[in-house]
Amino acid sequence: MSSLSRRGLFGIGAATAGAAVAATGAVAVGGFPVSEAGAATWSRPDVIPFPGRNQAGIATPVQDRMHTVAFDLTTSDRAAVIRLFKAWTDAAARMTAGNEVGEGAIPGVNEAPPDDTGEALGLPAARLTLTLGLGPGVFESDGKDRFGLRSQKPAALIELPRFAGDKLDPERTGGDLIVQACADDPQIAVHAIRNLVRIGFGTATVRWSQLGFGKTSSTTPSELTPRNLFGFKDGTENIASDDQTLLNQHVWVNSSQDDEPAWLDGGTFMVARRIAMRIETWDRTSLIEQEQLIGRSKGSGAPLGSAKERDKINVAALPPASHVRLVHPDSNNGHRLLRRGYSFVDGSDGLGRLDAGLFFIAFCRDPRTQYVPMQARVASQELLAEYLVHTGSGLWAVPPGVNTADGYWAQPLLEA
Amino acid sequence: MSSLSRRGLFGIGAATAGAAVAATGAVAVGGFPVSEAGAATWSRPDVIPFPGRNQAGIATPVQDRMHTVAFDLTTSDRAAVIRLFKAWTDAAARMTAGNEVGEGAIPGVNEAPPDDTGEALGLPAARLTLTLGLGPGVFESDGKDRFGLRSQKPAALIELPRFAGDKLDPERTGGDLIVQACADDPQIAVHAIRNLVRIGFGTATVRWSQLGFGKTSSTTPSELTPRNLFGFKDGTENIASDDQTLLNQHVWVNSSQDDEPAWLDGGTFMVARRIAMRIETWDRTSLIEQEQLIGRSKGSGAPLGSAKERDKINVAALPPASHVRLVHPDSNNGHRLLRRGYSFVDGSDGLGRLDAGLFFIAFCRDPRTQYVPMQARVASQELLAEYLVHTGSGLWAVPPGVNTADGYWAQPLLEA
Repeated sequence: MSSLSRRGLFGIGAATAGAAVAATGAVAVGGFPVSEAGAATWSRPDVIPFPGRNQAGIATPVQDRMHTVAFDLTTSDRAAVIRLFKAWTDAAARMTAGNEVGEGAIPGVNEAPPDDTGEALGLPAARLTLTLGLGPGVFESDGKDRFGLRSQKPAALIELPRFAGDKLDPERTGGDLIVQACADDPQIAVHAIRNLVRIGFGTATVRWSQLGFGKTSSTTPSELTPRNLFGFKDGTENIASDDQTLLNQHVWVNSSQDDEPAWLDGGTFMVARRIAMRIETWDRTSLIEQEQLIGRSKGSGAPLGSAKERDKINVAALPPASHVRLVHPDSNNGHRLLRRGYSFVDGSDGLGRLDAGLFFIAFCRDPRTQYVPMQARVASQELLAEYLVHTGSGLWAVPPGVNTADGYWAQPLLEA
Repeated sequence: MSSLSRRGLFGIGAATAGAAVAATGAVAVGGFPVSEAGAATWSRPDVIPFPGRNQAGIATPVQDRMHTVAFDLTTSDRAAVIRLFKAWTDAAARMTAGNEVGEGAIPGVNEAPPDDTGEALGLPAARLTLTLGLGPGVFESDGKDRFGLRSQKPAALIELPRFAGDKLDPERTGGDLIVQACADDPQIAVHAIRNLVRIGFGTATVRWSQLGFGKTSSTTPSELTPRNLFGFKDGTENIASDDQTLLNQHVWVNSSQDDEPAWLDGGTFMVARRIAMRIETWDRTSLIEQEQLIGRSKGSGAPLGSAKERDKINVAALPPASHVRLVHPDSNNGHRLLRRGYSFVDGSDGLGRLDAGLFFIAFCRDPRTQYVPMQARVASQELLAEYLVHTGSGLWAVPPGVNTADGYWAQPLLEA
């Protein structure tokens, strides 16, 4: 184990760093602590443990900010992908522990570019999580068995159908890989993505990237439910991050029950949809109509006809075309999603309006039964749909977590 | 005085709001408290006072997040501009006090759109500031004296010259008006801008909008100096928010000394530049070269040759083409800027890279002497310039603050 920490780089002494974070120095070169000895690294309150049966960033209490990037692989060499994922895993373990990438500057050899880009120096880990997903292109590309992995393709890693209202921009859709970075400080999320992009140079190229400034879903029922850009509380009935029963039922793949390859055990599927919201039209809609479209009271978040946000929902009592009614498990054969979306504002739309909306992220065990039927119904039936335009989309298989000191992301697949 | 607060809208009772903010109810309809009685509103730690001799958001300790929008006016009627600025002032005073826009839903009349869009309900004021600037188009447009204000045009509200390296996108440049929203919570900044856009519907249209996820300059020397996306500490020698001597010398217009109209007394000028940073090239540059280009040590932030970040800078000892040397007051006849910029990531650039950079914001008393010569020198002489592309630009005259209960933004100009 080396004794590096975020403030060990570029010759910063502890005395000048001024950060509140204790230097743990527990991240090993080429691996990370899963042992008892290393456990201290992962027990700090600002750190979400990187090792685990499942990847972090899914059943993790939702952080405030998000930067997600989709990559295309520019290689057809499986060994190059393995090298990339090993390097990314090492960097991800370091960064989520609040450390910098690499070993830092070695005195006298400053002629090399720094191992870390530096903009997170002195900052805490901010509950950073990094979550990797694999798109269809990892298994097959233009009909070719690109990396010899075609036989390992998950059954549920389908091409999403075209939904009513889709206006998908190819430059915001798909990607061989996706990495979701979430943190309570956007500088930390951006730093992490930027360093993975840097490490990927020559092997993976950025297809698109999306910043989310504010979470719209919580997985922590005890905290204030966040509001989306329609001004409504969203995801009140989301799966809680500590509800193992619901997580096992709706999120984690189990190959003994599911028609999926064994490497995906403990993994899941990630759906991402960039949804532009016609907020200027919404803002001229009456309060009563807004509430009928959503199915909740705007102020309290209570289902219409109820008094409190968490009152039990009787879907039959809600307007038939309301959002809450149509997405409720009672309208979806009991199916649920773990929602983890973020609001965005990407400048203006060239027509004098803000380009704002929801970057929808959901995790589920089988998108064919959990996401597709729900989205098909919502897109064609809910009246809210006229305020929404889906401009980006993608589905990725999310491998399980890394659980051994020399393990790396997607190892069970890549060494299959 | 009405007794409205952020949680008074849409029928939310105090018992269900769950926010940590006390309801002060001190914002009056059609005005705001400048009296002793209303002072309690502005003394809360999460609130930056809206009233004052100068607008807030300039000599205010820099908040973490930013959303800035430029508008074009779609009217040629001065009375319509006055109505807009009155409505904006009322909304800005309410929102900066942590309240919602307007009086909220009136029982039984929910057929109207809500006065406030709602997404900040339950959240604290988060030190929100809103700062208005007036572009050249307010005084003259296509050679026309559009609002009868041509004679009041500030002498220093010039057309910025073209600098070396400028690749300005017209859709990210200029604008009749600019509003800078800064807050410690991006949801609060976005909510404020979005509501001003909503109120401006029919009078002002969005020209461009820019989110900044992390401040790159501090005006509080006691706090950790933030780092920009080059990974370097930036603006160590910035003007401190409480340094009245430097503020009077370099920021606030004084018509008895400056060749400016009296309505601009206590105002200033705002320069904004969207600077794309070639981070992928930077990340492959050696540490020693990075430090030579900047003129500081990457780790400590100390000027090259010194030990500590705040050691006195001897410009003659720095590399001749280094950034710190060229922007230092000793290289600029003692001129200084108040810098208040933010990092951005706006998706990807279509070439497989992140579209990232610095949204540079600076306030100064006379851009002709303080900004233009410095930027001309930097753009043509600093070696760092090859990593930078200026893609957006603008200069605005920032009127003084609003200091009377029935006052409004730019009143001394519009009633001149």
